[in-house]
Amino acid sequence: MLFFTQCFGAVLDLIHLRFQHYKAKRVFSAAGQLVCVVNPTHSLKYAPTRCAAAQASTEQGILPPCHHHEAVHDPQLVPCTCPLFSCPWEGHLEVVVSHLRQTHRINILQGAEIVFLATDMHLPAPTDWIIMHSCLGHQFLLVLRKQEKYEGHPQFFATMMLIGTPTQANNFTYRLELNRNQRRLKWEATPRSILECVDSVISDGDCLVLNTSLAQLFSDNGSLAIGIAITTSKVHSSEAEI
Amino acid sequence: MLFFTQCFGAVLDLIHLRFQHYKAKRVFSAAGQLVCVVNPTHSLKYAPTRCAAAQASTEQGILPPCHHHEAVHDPQLVPCTCPLFSCPWEGHLEVVVSHLRQTHRINILQGAEIVFLATDMHLPAPTDWIIMHSCLGHQFLLVLRKQEKYEGHPQFFATMMLIGTPTQANNFTYRLELNRNQRRLKWEATPRSILECVDSVISDGDCLVLNTSLAQLFSDNGSLAIGIAITTSKVHSSEAEI
Repeated sequence: MLFFTQCFGAVLDLIHLRFQHYKAKRVFSAAGQLVCVVNPTHSLKYAPTRCAAAQASTEQGILPPCHHHEAVHDPQLVPCTCPLFSCPWEGHLEVVVSHLRQTHRINILQGAEIVFLATDMHLPAPTDWIIMHSCLGHQFLLVLRKQEKYEGHPQFFATMMLIGTPTQANNFTYRLELNRNQRRLKWEATPRSILECVDSVISDGDCLVLNTSLAQLFSDNGSLAIGIAITTSKVHSSEAEI
Repeated sequence: MLFFTQCFGAVLDLIHLRFQHYKAKRVFSAAGQLVCVVNPTHSLKYAPTRCAAAQASTEQGILPPCHHHEAVHDPQLVPCTCPLFSCPWEGHLEVVVSHLRQTHRINILQGAEIVFLATDMHLPAPTDWIIMHSCLGHQFLLVLRKQEKYEGHPQFFATMMLIGTPTQANNFTYRLELNRNQRRLKWEATPRSILECVDSVISDGDCLVLNTSLAQLFSDNGSLAIGIAITTSKVHSSEAEI
């Protein structure tokens, strides 16, 4: 009896996922953009983050595995950069993408402009929504995180990291755009390198930040659609500041 | 001796203001936009806000003076809408602008696109920067507020209110834009009517929200430049959502 109940539950889950995917396709088909439905990943709240480990290493005079800004000129080992996973993997920068795909099951999408549809925004913090984006000959990692920076007040933080060196990252500009309910919010910045720590980018607040009420205004039936576009930074730098 | 010291102090203040104004003109002259240097206004932290008074009136079954959404079809008295001032003035909607100019010394600027340069961003919360903007035959009130929504963590909130009814406000779209240090943040929305409470707009977070670190990244020498543009909402509504 228990077996049949579990089977029925699994079928219901599949129908639900299929419906969500269909709905996303339907909502955005008019714009002709590629939509990716991204399900949440529960964070390991009490696991020590790599930033903390890096900090400890720095205090002991050891080179930290992340949070270093210099370019990697020669092939060398880098730690797994998948946010909030305490993964012991280390490897060359060139094989980070295949590690993230194979071990952490992170999807990769092609295209200059895509829509990232994060589902189940109501889930409690900490929660991550992660996807890889292949564009202009490089791979980028988009991280949306729900986190309680101030206790009892969850916020959403979205940033984009280049799976490459900081020098390479400086060549690009990414744009995140929310558009719903007669409100529009756009964030443009240079992506950070995946060699830097996503935790510190988010704790510094140097990213797109949304409070819960604004996230609700921009979301539709518990899902938040973020339009993503990547360009080379020459376009950005040539524009005059305000 | 004291008289001479005070005179010297006043002259120094004038030179400082003149320098700030000159600097602002110099920074933005390339863009050919009108720049308005806006000095901060300290909020009356412990004064009861009109929202609280309105709430109390509602509980007692009396029509609140602010926070009502219906259009004012017939001339009627409205309370002073200058944020955070506990001003006892009441008057017709048509004379709110002259009251704000004369009593609260709020400047008014003409032009479709202006730059709002808020000085002394380091001042402790609560602090307001306020200006009126005359555009497309109407007057708008821009409020930038530094406030501690979470104790010890001041944030900046910027919104635009139409000095008119909610029905009139629905005809417009305002845009606030920050652009500095290879980062750009744009917020577009329909302005709220000044008959609604600016305090509730800010407490709901339905406006441009900046944490302190992001405000520092966008500011130059303690001043934050916000580009403002107002259009009729037909343009906004005709654009396809993401």
